[in-house]
Amino acid sequence: MSSERLIYLPLGGAGEIGMNAYVYGYGPKDKERLILVDLGVTFPDMDTTPGVDLIMPDISWLEERKNQLEAIFITHAHEDHVGAVGHLYERLGAPVYARAFTANIARHKMGEYGYSESVVRTASAWPEQITVGPFKVGFVPISHSIPESSGLVIDTPRGRIVHSGDFKIDETPVVGEPFDRDLWASIGASGVHALMCDSTNVFSNHEGRSEATLRPNLEELISNASGMVVATTFASNIARLKSLAEAGQAAGRSICLLGRAMRRMVEAGTQTGILTDFPKTITAEDARDVPRENLMLIVTGSQGERRAASAQLANGKYLGLQMKEGDTFLFSSKTIPGNERGVIRIMNQFSEMGVDVIDDAGGLYHVSGHANRPDLLEMHKLVNPDIVVPMHGEHRHLREHVKLAKERGAEAIVAVNGMLIDLSGAGPNVAEYVDTGRTYLDGSVQIGALDGIVRDRIRMALNGHIVVTVILDEDDDPLGEPWCELRGLPEMGRNNAPLVDVLEEDLSQFMGRAGAKTLTDDDKLEEGLKRQARQTAQAEIGKKPEVTVIISRLS
Amino acid sequence: MSSERLIYLPLGGAGEIGMNAYVYGYGPKDKERLILVDLGVTFPDMDTTPGVDLIMPDISWLEERKNQLEAIFITHAHEDHVGAVGHLYERLGAPVYARAFTANIARHKMGEYGYSESVVRTASAWPEQITVGPFKVGFVPISHSIPESSGLVIDTPRGRIVHSGDFKIDETPVVGEPFDRDLWASIGASGVHALMCDSTNVFSNHEGRSEATLRPNLEELISNASGMVVATTFASNIARLKSLAEAGQAAGRSICLLGRAMRRMVEAGTQTGILTDFPKTITAEDARDVPRENLMLIVTGSQGERRAASAQLANGKYLGLQMKEGDTFLFSSKTIPGNERGVIRIMNQFSEMGVDVIDDAGGLYHVSGHANRPDLLEMHKLVNPDIVVPMHGEHRHLREHVKLAKERGAEAIVAVNGMLIDLSGAGPNVAEYVDTGRTYLDGSVQIGALDGIVRDRIRMALNGHIVVTVILDEDDDPLGEPWCELRGLPEMGRNNAPLVDVLEEDLSQFMGRAGAKTLTDDDKLEEGLKRQARQTAQAEIGKKPEVTVIISRLS
Repeated sequence: MSSERLIYLPLGGAGEIGMNAYVYGYGPKDKERLILVDLGVTFPDMDTTPGVDLIMPDISWLEERKNQLEAIFITHAHEDHVGAVGHLYERLGAPVYARAFTANIARHKMGEYGYSESVVRTASAWPEQITVGPFKVGFVPISHSIPESSGLVIDTPRGRIVHSGDFKIDETPVVGEPFDRDLWASIGASGVHALMCDSTNVFSNHEGRSEATLRPNLEELISNASGMVVATTFASNIARLKSLAEAGQAAGRSICLLGRAMRRMVEAGTQTGILTDFPKTITAEDARDVPRENLMLIVTGSQGERRAASAQLANGKYLGLQMKEGDTFLFSSKTIPGNERGVIRIMNQFSEMGVDVIDDAGGLYHVSGHANRPDLLEMHKLVNPDIVVPMHGEHRHLREHVKLAKERGAEAIVAVNGMLIDLSGAGPNVAEYVDTGRTYLDGSVQIGALDGIVRDRIRMALNGHIVVTVILDEDDDPLGEPWCELRGLPEMGRNNAPLVDVLEEDLSQFMGRAGAKTLTDDDKLEEGLKRQARQTAQAEIGKKPEVTVIISRLS
Repeated sequence: MSSERLIYLPLGGAGEIGMNAYVYGYGPKDKERLILVDLGVTFPDMDTTPGVDLIMPDISWLEERKNQLEAIFITHAHEDHVGAVGHLYERLGAPVYARAFTANIARHKMGEYGYSESVVRTASAWPEQITVGPFKVGFVPISHSIPESSGLVIDTPRGRIVHSGDFKIDETPVVGEPFDRDLWASIGASGVHALMCDSTNVFSNHEGRSEATLRPNLEELISNASGMVVATTFASNIARLKSLAEAGQAAGRSICLLGRAMRRMVEAGTQTGILTDFPKTITAEDARDVPRENLMLIVTGSQGERRAASAQLANGKYLGLQMKEGDTFLFSSKTIPGNERGVIRIMNQFSEMGVDVIDDAGGLYHVSGHANRPDLLEMHKLVNPDIVVPMHGEHRHLREHVKLAKERGAEAIVAVNGMLIDLSGAGPNVAEYVDTGRTYLDGSVQIGALDGIVRDRIRMALNGHIVVTVILDEDDDPLGEPWCELRGLPEMGRNNAPLVDVLEEDLSQFMGRAGAKTLTDDDKLEEGLKRQARQTAQAEIGKKPEVTVIISRLS
């Protein structure tokens, strides 16, 4: 057996939906030449990551091996695949390959961070292949919910790997290339060693629906609406934007796009020639003069994001435009789990204005961009791999997808972030567990998920914060009384006395009782004051706050 | 026209789903005799109410009029209807009426807070009526997802009011009284002035399904399972507990209930005689000795609550019991919007153990406790009121329910919390807007939602917290340098220097520049230090933290 090995290591996206980053390597053990597929972000939430701006994969493993890294390939322009390129590029330094539309988006991100746009190289579609080290990588068009999505064919000395990228089987995707069964069958025909495959919709048992099926539903809805129509969807779903705009136009409405992300996507689509016949749009300023029954807005914020156009309209006037009784607001989108509260909030705000809110409950106005279970099975059959490694899914999705693959007779393994899989043999083996995790972009700084910073924020949010200050003189005697500042805590305690008074009284007594051993020792003093403050708070308000003790010694 | 008036005032539950509290009044303006229907809670979340234990309606309006309050009626024992009784009873002091099962739960809550259980009076079912002031109130059995739910008939000098309570139309509810069409028709026959009606499921267009339809599905699932079966549902859904337990028993399994809330509910059901033939259960200790294929656990935590039995099992061993590869975990429940993340977390933890997780995606293992749109319409027809006032719903539900009622020709109005509705005339009129809101139970203290306490917690969580300390001597000169303590903030700033060093350096320079006017004025000094600290942080880490400034003056 050869001493070279073929490895696969997900650093993000396996065991979660978000921040995709998959490493492939070929060569002698620990000296493999490496490529990275995708470099995406995940979005923070208040429960686990308050104050964080973006979540990215921890790429330390790859950074330590940057001299082995040949290139980065981006399958498509969704944020969970391309979003971290600008933030992490400097630490990796390898060229970035993507097809024209994705490259346009990636270059824009590079530009924002002051990198040369030339590090992003535009790749042509299959059958062209890019040779990097021992790999030959080809971008194979595949249908998804953003144009120019690609699966990757990665030919290695050990055999062919197919990395599906995000995909669905859609032969009429409205914008972008239809799914091409013959093409995928031909890729499978010469033998595929392993398929790394999207798992998102493995629990959806019905066949997926095409983007094109929505058009008549949208037309009917919009042509029957009386007031202004406002529709929101994912900014990157250019096919949907087009369907919406065309349906609006067919109903005699002028179309106005609101939201930076959406305009950026349409711009990228136009610049790269994939979007040639998008209806004429008008500016928000011009839209103000159009009678509302002749106007349609297409806006960002389908997930209820607080600063997006939909939330702004829900709050009142936005760019001089305002929704009113009799208008219609359409969510041409699904709500991603975790975003329900935000979406429901704006639904109710619209309801208060008398606006009719239509969502996807009936399945008429949105289709998923991911392959459902029967379509996954079809992909397995077309590509016909020896090994299936599910990716792009939570653990439950990966596990279910492994079952599906094994039913067909393929080898399969649940490989989550950090599992370094050796693909050199007939079946997949876990060769190593690599430390992986998450890096937070926090303001302008990258911090580790385990640094304790966010944990401290959560604790302050749950428990409130008491700051205790004491001053000791040159003889280590207390100078005056300790005092307390409270943040995020009730003013009055159980006995209707101000909490701060009770705390200061108890801490004062503690100082009085404390002997020289405590008063001369910062750690002991801090520990004692902390314990007393928490005890008092527990008695007074039934909570144990976070306590910061500040000891000043005059010397 | 009479100088007496009939009023309706929701203090909670209208414009939201949760913390129900509805006031009815009759009498001369501002001297009405009042009754309160339900007194429930809402559960907090990290996004808007971190650290809060429970959310309750602000009952100030009613408290100011407690001498006008005749009684409190509780329709059923769900937390959003009865949960605040123990916390708020003292501020209202009126007798509490409920049917036996609900009264059992309410008394337990009273006992926990040291009140006499005798304030809770057990009411008989319709046709008995309780006379309180100008009202005659009857508890009419109605089907829902907890036993002994009741709609209220409230007869007033102005006419009959029907308060539906939470309900569904279920003729085979497994436990508790079937929906009785004839009974409701007879209540409607003598003329109903107004129907206050549950709106929860107004957007569900299909007819509701009966609790009894689940039994065969549960039996099939459980009898086909090979390892241990663990099922979770809402603790209060005693019919479901019974269906689950019986299906388990039929499959030859011993039944073990885990979770305090669940055991409390079964105990209350048994004590009040509504639950007579629940399968024999075993303790957790005994369950350890039962072969797993002969064991079924029914556990709390269907919403992924962190401390409930389901989450404990997801974390590992719980009371000596542990899930394993080949076991089945069933969510016989729906996920309430906002709880998705918690539920998905435990699903994935189970997946990692090799447990098969079944949820309600297929509609086989859960039915809703609320009337769908066709069933609401049927209720309107049975009761045949002149006026419909939708309740128990967010604004969008109330608005849609008003449309439904108007289609039938009834008068209807969207009445949200704080709208005092005059029902004396032929149609409903908004007579007044009353200040309402939310009261938080925070540890052992009640605080107002607008007190700024929770806002400060959220700010600390989003922005982190800097504490700046300065000491000034008797001459108002700085004694030493200012120093900083950081919480929830990155250690290192942009230039790889410790943030705390840069802050202290900049604040020191600020102190050096500050003239006597600033140094002698606490407010000015605090303001200046705060501004400088935020400016430095923004430059170093791209965030503007919360800043607390502590100024000590030696005198």
